[in-house]
Amino acid sequence: MTIQNRADGRTPDQLRPVRLTRGWLDSAEGSVLVEFGGTRVLCAASFTAGVPRWRKGSGEGWVTAEYAMLPRATNSRSDRESVRGKIGGRTHEISRLIGRSLRAVIDYSALGENTIVLDCDVLQADGGTRTAAITGAYVALADAVAWGQKKGHVKPGTVLRDSVAAVSVGIVDGVPLLDLPYVEDVRAETDMNVVVTGSGSFVEVQGTAEGAPFHRAELDSLLDLALAGTTELTRLQVEALAGPVAGFRA
Amino acid sequence: MTIQNRADGRTPDQLRPVRLTRGWLDSAEGSVLVEFGGTRVLCAASFTAGVPRWRKGSGEGWVTAEYAMLPRATNSRSDRESVRGKIGGRTHEISRLIGRSLRAVIDYSALGENTIVLDCDVLQADGGTRTAAITGAYVALADAVAWGQKKGHVKPGTVLRDSVAAVSVGIVDGVPLLDLPYVEDVRAETDMNVVVTGSGSFVEVQGTAEGAPFHRAELDSLLDLALAGTTELTRLQVEALAGPVAGFRA
Amino acid sequence: MTIQNRADGRTPDQLRPVRLTRGWLDSAEGSVLVEFGGTRVLCAASFTAGVPRWRKGSGEGWVTAEYAMLPRATNSRSDRESVRGKIGGRTHEISRLIGRSLRAVIDYSALGENTIVLDCDVLQADGGTRTAAITGAYVALADAVAWGQKKGHVKPGTVLRDSVAAVSVGIVDGVPLLDLPYVEDVRAETDMNVVVTGSGSFVEVQGTAEGAPFHRAELDSLLDLALAGTTELTRLQVEALAGPVAGFRA
Amino acid sequence: MTIQNRADGRTPDQLRPVRLTRGWLDSAEGSVLVEFGGTRVLCAASFTAGVPRWRKGSGEGWVTAEYAMLPRATNSRSDRESVRGKIGGRTHEISRLIGRSLRAVIDYSALGENTIVLDCDVLQADGGTRTAAITGAYVALADAVAWGQKKGHVKPGTVLRDSVAAVSVGIVDGVPLLDLPYVEDVRAETDMNVVVTGSGSFVEVQGTAEGAPFHRAELDSLLDLALAGTTELTRLQVEALAGPVAGFRA
Amino acid sequence: MTIQNRADGRTPDQLRPVRLTRGWLDSAEGSVLVEFGGTRVLCAASFTAGVPRWRKGSGEGWVTAEYAMLPRATNSRSDRESVRGKIGGRTHEISRLIGRSLRAVIDYSALGENTIVLDCDVLQADGGTRTAAITGAYVALADAVAWGQKKGHVKPGTVLRDSVAAVSVGIVDGVPLLDLPYVEDVRAETDMNVVVTGSGSFVEVQGTAEGAPFHRAELDSLLDLALAGTTELTRLQVEALAGPVAGFRA
Amino acid sequence: MTIQNRADGRTPDQLRPVRLTRGWLDSAEGSVLVEFGGTRVLCAASFTAGVPRWRKGSGEGWVTAEYAMLPRATNSRSDRESVRGKIGGRTHEISRLIGRSLRAVIDYSALGENTIVLDCDVLQADGGTRTAAITGAYVALADAVAWGQKKGHVKPGTVLRDSVAAVSVGIVDGVPLLDLPYVEDVRAETDMNVVVTGSGSFVEVQGTAEGAPFHRAELDSLLDLALAGTTELTRLQVEALAGPVAGFRA
Repeated sequence: MTIQNRADGRTPDQLRPVRLTRGWLDSAEGSVLVEFGGTRVLCAASFTAGVPRWRKGSGEGWVTAEYAMLPRATNSRSDRESVRGKIGGRTHEISRLIGRSLRAVIDYSALGENTIVLDCDVLQADGGTRTAAITGAYVALADAVAWGQKKGHVKPGTVLRDSVAAVSVGIVDGVPLLDLPYVEDVRAETDMNVVVTGSGSFVEVQGTAEGAPFHRAELDSLLDLALAGTTELTRLQVEALAGPVAGFRA
Repeated sequence: MTIQNRADGRTPDQLRPVRLTRGWLDSAEGSVLVEFGGTRVLCAASFTAGVPRWRKGSGEGWVTAEYAMLPRATNSRSDRESVRGKIGGRTHEISRLIGRSLRAVIDYSALGENTIVLDCDVLQADGGTRTAAITGAYVALADAVAWGQKKGHVKPGTVLRDSVAAVSVGIVDGVPLLDLPYVEDVRAETDMNVVVTGSGSFVEVQGTAEGAPFHRAELDSLLDLALAGTTELTRLQVEALAGPVAGFRA
Repeated sequence: MTIQNRADGRTPDQLRPVRLTRGWLDSAEGSVLVEFGGTRVLCAASFTAGVPRWRKGSGEGWVTAEYAMLPRATNSRSDRESVRGKIGGRTHEISRLIGRSLRAVIDYSALGENTIVLDCDVLQADGGTRTAAITGAYVALADAVAWGQKKGHVKPGTVLRDSVAAVSVGIVDGVPLLDLPYVEDVRAETDMNVVVTGSGSFVEVQGTAEGAPFHRAELDSLLDLALAGTTELTRLQVEALAGPVAGFRA
Repeated sequence: MTIQNRADGRTPDQLRPVRLTRGWLDSAEGSVLVEFGGTRVLCAASFTAGVPRWRKGSGEGWVTAEYAMLPRATNSRSDRESVRGKIGGRTHEISRLIGRSLRAVIDYSALGENTIVLDCDVLQADGGTRTAAITGAYVALADAVAWGQKKGHVKPGTVLRDSVAAVSVGIVDGVPLLDLPYVEDVRAETDMNVVVTGSGSFVEVQGTAEGAPFHRAELDSLLDLALAGTTELTRLQVEALAGPVAGFRA
Repeated sequence: MTIQNRADGRTPDQLRPVRLTRGWLDSAEGSVLVEFGGTRVLCAASFTAGVPRWRKGSGEGWVTAEYAMLPRATNSRSDRESVRGKIGGRTHEISRLIGRSLRAVIDYSALGENTIVLDCDVLQADGGTRTAAITGAYVALADAVAWGQKKGHVKPGTVLRDSVAAVSVGIVDGVPLLDLPYVEDVRAETDMNVVVTGSGSFVEVQGTAEGAPFHRAELDSLLDLALAGTTELTRLQVEALAGPVAGFRA
Repeated sequence: MTIQNRADGRTPDQLRPVRLTRGWLDSAEGSVLVEFGGTRVLCAASFTAGVPRWRKGSGEGWVTAEYAMLPRATNSRSDRESVRGKIGGRTHEISRLIGRSLRAVIDYSALGENTIVLDCDVLQADGGTRTAAITGAYVALADAVAWGQKKGHVKPGTVLRDSVAAVSVGIVDGVPLLDLPYVEDVRAETDMNVVVTGSGSFVEVQGTAEGAPFHRAELDSLLDLALAGTTELTRLQVEALAGPVAGFRA
């Protein structure tokens, strides 16, 4: 297993250029355009007072997410799910994954009876859309929580117990690689998405053998890579939240 | 009827700042981010060889359009049509309007047996989304036609017989206004969308009395305003198509 | 542009024979079979006390409409929308148009918290089904309002501020024509539906270039024709409402 | 058990006034407005050359039926199945019943590879809509077969091996009654629909205890009544097919 | 008409081996695996306190049923109705039949405001699935009622006024036969499903001519056979309810 | 972290009683009732010659899976997905997981242009339904492949390159446990499903923090447990396939 450079010149353990542009929408309570290389996902957080009926009176809030792709986000156009009249299995899966990932770091009692919906719409897809979505959605969520506190809907205090970020890893030609673009993703024998908190614990590990089944040692290498990647993403999230709200013309 | 300034300082016959950013997506055959003030619509043109079955062997092409809005394009979040499992009447109406508008200027024989689908996705809505969509979609369509000719799928020659642009007009407090943003749109007694070719003929006139019915004289004033507005939009389309492809970071 | 006779011998500015048969159904609060030549639309008005939830406590009523076509209303059979499991864009568009047209003349406060639903079902289609539907639905609505007043659900007084009627106009072989049957409709270069109040103001103007875009002068001619046509339709509505309820065997 | 007169003055074994108006639509290959008292069903037969894919090359034809009710056919308005996005169980059941009833008398080989679809749309419902539909649909089917033979799509000869008619019977206050209108239908302890050929054999017997279960003797009385009723309906069908095509203004 | 033995050696008036296994599920309030030869239907009764909204405050309960088939219950696989996104007409029909059959014997007042849903899922289909479902569902219903009484949700006393069972009969090669398996069912000229109470009255009679229409005398023979069959099924239901709850490993 | 016994008396690394009953259905090409304790899943394999259109002419076969749950498989009844008209996200996810797991061990070229569909219907759910489904589906798949070879549809040789089994693991009160029943599953802080080949490589690893995120060391313990569990399941699969086909009455 030699350490070789990749199509875009990165080393195996290097992320693509990542950008987190806050305030991309004028009216959403939190909104982030997240870019992992050519992958661009618009994450909008909508804050509303109140919770779904089954949660009323609990004193606790709710966070949920919806993921979707524009028809021409990909190389060739896909049909719209609204036109087909139903949501595909992949979309369902990813929406649920994003929701679970964000819920892992939220303190429902501190949020109070408020709901935050995260819409993650892929404007352009070049691999890793779900991990970019989670990474960007966390920042949009943080902005929406801050908005709720500023407006007095949420009490001051810690609503987000930790941050959360995600990255894809995979084995291509026997080499474990971090943050796969589309051209690598289609060739990967094993594909894994890993969701990690700012403090380095796992929220979700989803590994799939696309080609040959993988050994325990390969799994271990992939987890190492993923942890290194999410450490860097966490740093970028902290930086983005500490910086100014750039807005659409950034 | 006095000529008064508007909330954003425009005169009644003035357009909002309009931007047409070509090449906003990396892989679509044509793509334009069109902005009418705070309204932002991503228009992606997908070129595919071949036509739907009912048109095979005719020697003629096909152009169609789909319009949609991201859930948080508006001030408060709307449910996704894919989640509701059906497309609403308004979405249907606008998709059909965009398709008809573009088909009015295309020469199907010159296009040959090729299909171009225009996806117009509203990223942010501040009034006039359908007219912005038509105006931007025309530019994306022109780029997709040029792509088809460059790749040899379409014969050299004139495929687009004319250009097409659209603008909204309306009567607010008795005053006819051009290009209404959301705050004016909700207060308009009459609301009209007008689609006009580059040479100044009408493709579509859709006027609706939201409040009191309107008189023939009011209708005439609105048509005058609309023709002035589309003349300016035509100029901006020509300018955009003559200039460089700016791309996403524009 | 010569004034020539048409297939059915009419002059360009002549309506087809129009009949408005009230009381065609035994139990609906208002019901009218409207005929524009071979086009037959059954308009049924259903009055119910109460309003949709979002309107409760407002003191105001609600009027809405649904349009549909029987599968064999046309020359060749169409699939049922109930069987396909979704409503097509055209049906949505026309239902919305009828609803807006009727709402333009109703005084919601005078109606009180009552709802009237207009079902316009096309039994046979020979062009102009949407305009016939609006013209007939107004009469059914008037009967339903009268029923509500007679039964004491609605206070005495003026609930309908004006009447409303509609007609199609179009340009065929360069000649503007009034009230197009199917054979003319498919050949029209421009097709326009115009909804006008009894007092002669516009409620809706929807013009579409099916073939070549149209000039301002053509638009003006079409509007002239349409206003003459709706004036005659208004007269027929008044006559029908002043006369006896003919019933099904008329 | 005394033989008493009914609300509308009929004896227990008497049909309501039945009318079969042929040619009610201008362009359908067969069309009949059938009335059983206040129940009015429009039966349209659509003839098309060719058969569904699974039947191609068999040399045999196909006959199918669809039943539906207009929203205001009944005393209070029902939601449209197209709007609800799915067809209810009752509609499915009746469509299937009509189709089976007609298929029982057709000779598929004699029909050749042609399809006839029967649309039975209830314009007004006052009990017995499914039996009226079958009785009217048979006449429309006969007209469509004749049309196919006249046009040369179907070879001369006997395509319909027999006629078919249907009637409802039920037990109200212990008395077996023929042809129940709505007011009797809702009070019936037992409700039965019987489909019988012109030669007096059963095609379908569907009896349901709405209240108390019924005894064998009651079942026998109901079958006697039904056979008498369908004998009369058969006579009226023969008469209608022998007479002139009355058309819409009948 | 000679009395011949059948493929499986039965006489024309003989049932297949019938088994009613109570307690097949661990947690349902009532559950029965019913077998009519190779036909196996799992009937689960779910008891819930409360009734649907339209029945609240009536003091009366509600019983309903849903029927479905596993995709590979039959010889060749069928598509899932959940995947197709809609329920077929046959499924609707049978669900409604089972519900009506059970409702014929229940005393709603004695049940009180409680709901029992019967799920009848066909694990393997070899003819007569709907009649097996009714026969098994009655036993599961009886167990659920007993459960409700034991838990104090339902007052002691008679909730089930009678029992109910069902069987299919049909004419094959001119011979009336009881309880048709699939191989006979597909060859039957006439097919009838009969639902009968424990005391021998009819709840439902549904006879259909699949081939030639049937005569009154044939109908009478079929009803005789059916009554003999349901008498035996009633005996087996009584026996099952008197015996022990066998459970899954029976 | 002490090794304590569990509610059902098992040690942390012990499977529930597992049964694999082959031939549970009479006509399916492969069918297995798999039990993991109280969890019972019916796995039916349907073999059909031919492949979906997109795979025709490739010389390769196709394997897919559908998972579903009977409405009363669980403690309280769930609505049917067929009635709701759409498939939920969880169902989609699991169907896809089962399909991927089986496809990981199949040699498409050796299968030839044949399709095998695995239907996994949960009759009773007590935790681990997806892992039981995979474990049982592999055995049904093996039987269907053998059927195809016996009938001559598939060439002799190795179609299944390896076997595949799955098990759930989780952390409850800080203790890693193997094969969680429902009562443990709802209390688990971390829940992981692991799919492993007979030779001990991973096909799928899906770990989710339901409560607190988990550390690398915990992940390692869970993987150890899972590998031990799947080794035992592999042994039981081998044993089942070597033994007789027990059939339904086993």
